[in-house]
Amino acid sequence: MTKQELFENIIRKQSFLCVGLDTDIKKIPPHLLEDEDPLFAFNKRIIDATQSYCVAYKPNFAFYESLGAKGQISLEKTVEYIRSNYPDQFIIADAKRGDIGNTSEMYARAVFDYSDFDAVTVAPYMGEDSVKPFLVYPNKWVILLALTSNKGSRDFQLTPDSDGERLFEKVLKKSQEWTSDEQMMYVVGATQGKMFQDIRKYAPNHFLLVPGVGAQGGSLEEVAKYGMNKQCGLLVNSSRQIIYADNTEKFAEFAAQEAQKVQEEMSKYLKWVTNAK
Amino acid sequence: MTKQELFENIIRKQSFLCVGLDTDIKKIPPHLLEDEDPLFAFNKRIIDATQSYCVAYKPNFAFYESLGAKGQISLEKTVEYIRSNYPDQFIIADAKRGDIGNTSEMYARAVFDYSDFDAVTVAPYMGEDSVKPFLVYPNKWVILLALTSNKGSRDFQLTPDSDGERLFEKVLKKSQEWTSDEQMMYVVGATQGKMFQDIRKYAPNHFLLVPGVGAQGGSLEEVAKYGMNKQCGLLVNSSRQIIYADNTEKFAEFAAQEAQKVQEEMSKYLKWVTNAK
Repeated sequence: MTKQELFENIIRKQSFLCVGLDTDIKKIPPHLLEDEDPLFAFNKRIIDATQSYCVAYKPNFAFYESLGAKGQISLEKTVEYIRSNYPDQFIIADAKRGDIGNTSEMYARAVFDYSDFDAVTVAPYMGEDSVKPFLVYPNKWVILLALTSNKGSRDFQLTPDSDGERLFEKVLKKSQEWTSDEQMMYVVGATQGKMFQDIRKYAPNHFLLVPGVGAQGGSLEEVAKYGMNKQCGLLVNSSRQIIYADNTEKFAEFAAQEAQKVQEEMSKYLKWVTNAK
Repeated sequence: MTKQELFENIIRKQSFLCVGLDTDIKKIPPHLLEDEDPLFAFNKRIIDATQSYCVAYKPNFAFYESLGAKGQISLEKTVEYIRSNYPDQFIIADAKRGDIGNTSEMYARAVFDYSDFDAVTVAPYMGEDSVKPFLVYPNKWVILLALTSNKGSRDFQLTPDSDGERLFEKVLKKSQEWTSDEQMMYVVGATQGKMFQDIRKYAPNHFLLVPGVGAQGGSLEEVAKYGMNKQCGLLVNSSRQIIYADNTEKFAEFAAQEAQKVQEEMSKYLKWVTNAK
């Protein structure tokens, strides 16, 4: 998907919501455990119920991997289901990959060749040649970790170097030598509030994938206020707050309600973009 | 496995070789493609042939993931095969994982609960809470990326902070607040030669997992000279040079010969450890 297409989807749906499919076998409604593929059964209903309120889905690989090959099958079915039924959804492999060149090449094959994701999250620690193999696929995206939503983000990401530049700023700057904002986004945690202003100094035009709204405590209004650009430039993820809104047979309806609430709030902020045109 | 047990295996086998199972469907001998599980068929023969010359195996997850659920099954069978037949082998999940706490917990379940690896490679970018969930499993190890073997290691890992401390040094120092050398090792690329002296200033007693000997050009002698400590403290990985030594029906015999060559060189360096006792 191109950047322009993603932006058009956002305007049409009046939403920049990404629904995180952190599907945990221990948290899904108990009646689904009778299904032969409980994770997929859950995802399918969540997707059908929420798809009109969001523009992206983000399966979190860890949750599927914890069930081995069986979880992998649930994940593959989920991606195929979204791709066939809702082709305008942007599908993110939240996998935090990154390794030496020949190995990143294999990770890229996994998400872009074998599966048909639009984007993959990548950790920057190993530098340029760990990221580039993901960029050879046209219209596929790398979403590079910049400033994450967790407490541990302070351990290394905020350390200033000898020129006073913090590590996440260095990542933002350096990685722009590798490709353009047509193939790269950055992960910036919603819990970082006003730091979005700093991020936008370095990456005014990039899309940012923003986790941490909801269960992790980030404010959507702050993110929109400090993070939005003229093509919206935000994909805000919510996982637990939406997909685990309810634990009964009505879980999908409750998920839809939660997604709709977020979408309605987002439509207000999107006026800032359309009014500025 | 405890550190002492690993050291005893090294002395007994006169080897600190880790064989990297970077098993690529496009590189294995063509006759194996007729097997119903070519990756496992290849691994099984490589393992049987090399196990007396090494103390560890390191399946590289990317190569299995590139084949989807089928690759995942090959990987699971490989781990079970090593565990049942050669229980003194240290099995490393080379997966470069790391995410926010609840997600790292799931990755830890995948490698330590669902599968029975001894260790997992983890990327440090997201800090303490992304690493700690792996440390709750007794006698299981985190192998944290410190200074990697690739060119991109220069992009961020070598950047000095405002106190002159380079990022990899900060990772070495900070991470020692999280656990001891009984549960943590570091990845240090063999291509970094004399940098091992710097590493040993910060981590004199830790085991180091050293990729980059062989195809990537690192020298085993230099690694041993600058990296070894009184419990050896090294696991040197070789993948391509051993497992792809030959492409015919005799591939396993050639792999054994290559592994033996490395083991014999290692036994010379291990005299430095035993003589120092």
